[in-house]
Amino acid sequence: MLTNVEHLGIAVKDLAASNDLFTKLLGVPPYKSEAVESEGVTTSFFKINQTKIELLEATRPESAIAKFIDKKGEGIHHVAFEVDDILAEMERLKGEGFTLLNETPKQGADNKLVCFLHPKGTNGVLIELCQERI
Amino acid sequence: MLTNVEHLGIAVKDLAASNDLFTKLLGVPPYKSEAVESEGVTTSFFKINQTKIELLEATRPESAIAKFIDKKGEGIHHVAFEVDDILAEMERLKGEGFTLLNETPKQGADNKLVCFLHPKGTNGVLIELCQERI
Repeated sequence: MLTNVEHLGIAVKDLAASNDLFTKLLGVPPYKSEAVESEGVTTSFFKINQTKIELLEATRPESAIAKFIDKKGEGIHHVAFEVDDILAEMERLKGEGFTLLNETPKQGADNKLVCFLHPKGTNGVLIELCQERI
Repeated sequence: MLTNVEHLGIAVKDLAASNDLFTKLLGVPPYKSEAVESEGVTTSFFKINQTKIELLEATRPESAIAKFIDKKGEGIHHVAFEVDDILAEMERLKGEGFTLLNETPKQGADNKLVCFLHPKGTNGVLIELCQERI
């Protein structure tokens, strides 16, 4: 079951400058920063009520975030839904005809197990399922 | 103050087909549909915890949603933050250097007063402020 819009991922070119910008916008500073080496990104997190805003800067040119910005410019990259059982949800969505971008959950930022759905099957929206690692 | 990610707006070409798709994805059907004649859109709403997913289909070619899809394809169009006092927040954000796309609040879908911020000043993200009309 999808239980919450856990976070919105926003691709930015300059994380330090965007941290300042989003601090002004949201009225709160980022509460943490984290590098995800496997994805080639540095991230920072803001929290508004029960949803996080995750800013993502690429650390290398072949990172998915660098490629996204090259193609589409800065902007919203993905939306992540919290799920109560990621394996069951991946199985359910595959059965409904959605295409999973990873067949087993992988380690994401913020201590999460994650799975992405192919945006071609979801009206162009890159969707992440995420579940807190126990 | 920004108090919640109130909704995500997703631009789609075929609202009926996308209603089916998002019903499968989210596991719940849309709880309402609404036309906003002034914006040239028909919308439908889903709810996950405290955040809504708003699907938007253009009703005429000069609608902002039609232009967005022509330029970028289907996908996430905007993110809306709930505010407790839209006039105060518009004033505060103008003072912080953000550009408002409308200088006075306008009527949005879902009984809201809304104001958009220019995405050039927000890392390419079209941001809506919204407050429930009393």
